[in-house]
Amino acid sequence: MRLGQTVCVTLFGESHGNSVGSLVEGVPAGTIIDAEILMEDMIARRPGSKLASKRKETDEVEILSGVYQGKATGDPILLLIRNRDARSTDYEFLPNQPRPGHADHVSNVKSQGYADPRGGGSFSGRLTAGLVAAGSISRLILPSEWKVEAKIHQIGGLDESEGRILAENCRKEKDSIGSSVILEISGLPVGIGEPWFDGLEPALAGALMAIPGARAVEFGRGVMAGTMKGSEHNDLWLDDFKLLEGADGALGGISTGAKLTVTITFKPPSSIAQPQQTWNEGLKEIRELIVKGRHDPVLAPRARMVVEAVARLVLADLGVRGGYIDA
Amino acid sequence: MRLGQTVCVTLFGESHGNSVGSLVEGVPAGTIIDAEILMEDMIARRPGSKLASKRKETDEVEILSGVYQGKATGDPILLLIRNRDARSTDYEFLPNQPRPGHADHVSNVKSQGYADPRGGGSFSGRLTAGLVAAGSISRLILPSEWKVEAKIHQIGGLDESEGRILAENCRKEKDSIGSSVILEISGLPVGIGEPWFDGLEPALAGALMAIPGARAVEFGRGVMAGTMKGSEHNDLWLDDFKLLEGADGALGGISTGAKLTVTITFKPPSSIAQPQQTWNEGLKEIRELIVKGRHDPVLAPRARMVVEAVARLVLADLGVRGGYIDA
Amino acid sequence: MRLGQTVCVTLFGESHGNSVGSLVEGVPAGTIIDAEILMEDMIARRPGSKLASKRKETDEVEILSGVYQGKATGDPILLLIRNRDARSTDYEFLPNQPRPGHADHVSNVKSQGYADPRGGGSFSGRLTAGLVAAGSISRLILPSEWKVEAKIHQIGGLDESEGRILAENCRKEKDSIGSSVILEISGLPVGIGEPWFDGLEPALAGALMAIPGARAVEFGRGVMAGTMKGSEHNDLWLDDFKLLEGADGALGGISTGAKLTVTITFKPPSSIAQPQQTWNEGLKEIRELIVKGRHDPVLAPRARMVVEAVARLVLADLGVRGGYIDA
Amino acid sequence: MRLGQTVCVTLFGESHGNSVGSLVEGVPAGTIIDAEILMEDMIARRPGSKLASKRKETDEVEILSGVYQGKATGDPILLLIRNRDARSTDYEFLPNQPRPGHADHVSNVKSQGYADPRGGGSFSGRLTAGLVAAGSISRLILPSEWKVEAKIHQIGGLDESEGRILAENCRKEKDSIGSSVILEISGLPVGIGEPWFDGLEPALAGALMAIPGARAVEFGRGVMAGTMKGSEHNDLWLDDFKLLEGADGALGGISTGAKLTVTITFKPPSSIAQPQQTWNEGLKEIRELIVKGRHDPVLAPRARMVVEAVARLVLADLGVRGGYIDA
Repeated sequence: MRLGQTVCVTLFGESHGNSVGSLVEGVPAGTIIDAEILMEDMIARRPGSKLASKRKETDEVEILSGVYQGKATGDPILLLIRNRDARSTDYEFLPNQPRPGHADHVSNVKSQGYADPRGGGSFSGRLTAGLVAAGSISRLILPSEWKVEAKIHQIGGLDESEGRILAENCRKEKDSIGSSVILEISGLPVGIGEPWFDGLEPALAGALMAIPGARAVEFGRGVMAGTMKGSEHNDLWLDDFKLLEGADGALGGISTGAKLTVTITFKPPSSIAQPQQTWNEGLKEIRELIVKGRHDPVLAPRARMVVEAVARLVLADLGVRGGYIDA
Repeated sequence: MRLGQTVCVTLFGESHGNSVGSLVEGVPAGTIIDAEILMEDMIARRPGSKLASKRKETDEVEILSGVYQGKATGDPILLLIRNRDARSTDYEFLPNQPRPGHADHVSNVKSQGYADPRGGGSFSGRLTAGLVAAGSISRLILPSEWKVEAKIHQIGGLDESEGRILAENCRKEKDSIGSSVILEISGLPVGIGEPWFDGLEPALAGALMAIPGARAVEFGRGVMAGTMKGSEHNDLWLDDFKLLEGADGALGGISTGAKLTVTITFKPPSSIAQPQQTWNEGLKEIRELIVKGRHDPVLAPRARMVVEAVARLVLADLGVRGGYIDA
Repeated sequence: MRLGQTVCVTLFGESHGNSVGSLVEGVPAGTIIDAEILMEDMIARRPGSKLASKRKETDEVEILSGVYQGKATGDPILLLIRNRDARSTDYEFLPNQPRPGHADHVSNVKSQGYADPRGGGSFSGRLTAGLVAAGSISRLILPSEWKVEAKIHQIGGLDESEGRILAENCRKEKDSIGSSVILEISGLPVGIGEPWFDGLEPALAGALMAIPGARAVEFGRGVMAGTMKGSEHNDLWLDDFKLLEGADGALGGISTGAKLTVTITFKPPSSIAQPQQTWNEGLKEIRELIVKGRHDPVLAPRARMVVEAVARLVLADLGVRGGYIDA
Repeated sequence: MRLGQTVCVTLFGESHGNSVGSLVEGVPAGTIIDAEILMEDMIARRPGSKLASKRKETDEVEILSGVYQGKATGDPILLLIRNRDARSTDYEFLPNQPRPGHADHVSNVKSQGYADPRGGGSFSGRLTAGLVAAGSISRLILPSEWKVEAKIHQIGGLDESEGRILAENCRKEKDSIGSSVILEISGLPVGIGEPWFDGLEPALAGALMAIPGARAVEFGRGVMAGTMKGSEHNDLWLDDFKLLEGADGALGGISTGAKLTVTITFKPPSSIAQPQQTWNEGLKEIRELIVKGRHDPVLAPRARMVVEAVARLVLADLGVRGGYIDA
């Protein structure tokens, strides 16, 4: 549950346990830790909006180590978020009747029955709270000209505003809808990324695919590149190695100076309120399951913040490793 | 340039240097090292077919350590492949006039001019020889029922047989064409994959995106999941947790027992024989560049083998880490 | 601040900050987490006895993640210990006049002034609380026949009972005294340890030398081996590879089945109550410094517990990595 | 078989296999690779002198990747040393009758019989050739004012010149003798070393204890510190944080600016020519064993070079990690 090598974050916690959070290592000494930004980031990710789960969490982050007089000491920073509004009674069917589309069953098998099944345990999207908190810390590690922005790309094939209406309808119909997020990274100098498996794209792809519900990552022209010709796809180096708008932001995993664009596809949330016919291991038969809980009908609106957090953490790590950010 | 944690492979070498290869660590003692399979895998990846680069390499692999009496000792295995048919004179324009779509420029900037520029140096697809050799070693680490197969999914929007004709035409027109590979992994027990950033999908996505030319990875229904409804996308658990054909092969990054399907999109090869107008740093102006070399008009036919190798290495690593394969 | 690869512990916290503790990863699912043992271990390390610092800490450990119904889930376990009895006013001379023998100065330079200086910050022996808590968790990972015991070897050249009197006198004289701990590991099967840098001795030496105040580690006959002959030192393999009492517990870093003995030398505690003439950076002159705080006159009595904790964590890591303990 | 995190070296090879060597990662691009220094370092370690094993190896190092036009490219550097003068017939008693004091038996058990037993296989001191070659590369990574020097401290209780005579006598008597090496590191700025487990002392202790035959490591006053008083042991900070000669070179694992002194004790070589009565697993009885081979009667003279290599590699790693050396 660890991301990164130099700047690295380890997640911990369970959806309905005592707490969630993250331990962030490698934050350069002197980095300003801005509690206000942290709070804003947590609010942006927080459930409770119309399109989001009805679980109410204040998501207050306790900073328990590694910060002195408002600045990072260089030592591990512990970010702790208590769980307060967990309704574990909503999950009494677990692990007997695992939810379709969730990790309940595989987690139970893998842990030989020792996993905390409530609300998805450590597989829950709730753990992205620790990731967003860590990402917020990484904001001030990154040079100010490195811009990271994630937006809703589409919801069920529609643009953001129409898609939100669609999602609200899906919720009413006890259903949910797929979506995607577009991530844009700009302002990087040439040279960010390490060769091969630690390149910008491998690092981003690996980290982004860990966000619950992610099903695809595309870089630049993405899937479309699979039907293009070389003469169309090649980005010519213009004066002083400038590139045209739309050029790939990385080659061989190393930043080119052009904007890096990543599209991340999220499946429709698996928790839907309509009855589902699925295996009950206790009764050894297929039974109707109604998932209560309080759930989002679409992932992109909240996943957006997680995508940004993940991207910032990856950039902070690669930036320090490559010597582009002072450790 | 390292992939994996327990079973891990480190690539080394340069396209036109002395050699390429890999150091493979964590191969369980007693694993049979089958020189014949190794040779076959190398031949399948080897350039020289009609659709492939004309560079002729025998790609003989010297196994220089870690194997005794035909079996792995458990110590690091050094796989060395000498470069023989390198024509460095083809690359005399480097690093002055970097090729469009290649890492020449970013590599030169990142290394402050110390990188070996010839033929892409350490960014060259030539390094996949070491990866395929390592993947071949991992074949016999995997339990025999774990099946890994990568096929050509499409070339320029056409199926394999028509696509090959298209690619041959592109070559004649001094152009190249995009493609994609479909990877199918079957026979895994429930439970392979570690939580979050070391899940099956994150691990595969990170590793596959490091293959030169990869632009997208999609799992299961991939990009299509972004417009589906939850009621359609959810895979119901059937009797004894069986799943229907087409169900996701992993949930939360952990194998479900269903076939895992991954689609990897490759851009059209950037080396095309037609003249390109691109920046010449030596002359400080945009000039025509004609890339000689001997190049593939499409990546999927050879990338297929690399995809399989990468997938096997990832599975070997996760299998050992999870205790599903004896170390 | 991380120890281990498979079973691994990351320390966090500062002596006079909010808290100290550790994040323990890789604890096999199902491992019993015994709160009573944890409490006993913490009490044994706790300051407050005659020979120990007068700082009073209850050292209650909050287990905030990774445990469900009294057993490890396999996910990261967060162990948090709040600081309660910190008297930061005792350290107002820092960082201006760093204490001799402490890391105050080097920590200040390394962190460019951003370290928390109070009570040694993250270099304080207080962080061993998190290490002992983690070691306590590792107790139940180890097979019951693997015995780990650390005893006071000597204090100021005297045996334990006389040495304690000596230490008490040193305290009265506002001085402190050196000591050593002997660690005995028995009951290991043949084969624990990984080759070269991850062998039993390298792993133990590296981890033990991180305990504050450690100055030497000796294995088996230790320093004495430097003057012995091969014919004396060689341990002959007896019937069925038994070894005589006193034989080396590891060869080439791998356990032999014989008892492994390690002697760890600790310097006299650097915090002594007598005035010391030392550089004051604020005043730019050498000045008298009187270290208040509440300090131990000898390290071995409390370090003993830390040595055991570290040894258990190293064995748990190597045991899991080698497949001798099920992950 | 890997040392270091940023600058890191992985050993490979077996004593009587095809080759030994190392893969060195993280060498900063532009580092001069001086083939002459490399050759000199290899000669200094090479067997063949009076006090050393009679095995004749030219120990020529092939640099097979990562170097272009005499400078490091920043990519992995493969250093290969072929085995030429291996007499495997000397080891036909293995693995049936493992040598006392060697890893033959534990290696055989650990690998379930798959290890290469000849001459100690991958546990052989022969692998230090790859370590010395890597250490030689690291020479030019270190700033020139960082001095690393290892000298013979004592042989069998005598100084170097008398000790060498003693060792020669031991050889004639078909015996061997213990020894120690003193390592001095000077010229480091304040701040080298990372907190806790990656401090200078933990990192050096772990790495040095991996050298075959090492039995103890002592820092500064070492074992003697165990009987000293705090008032004697404390090093006072003098004007501008200078320290007196003899002060500890590190506090809390971080360099103080004073010379760092490490004493490493080596056991007498286990290969002695006199008959030894030891277990024969083939015959299931204790039998006389005469170890032929060609062996050193004392380790310090050649281990000295390995100690320096290891120390340089550790410093290069910590120097890059701490930002004291540009990556």
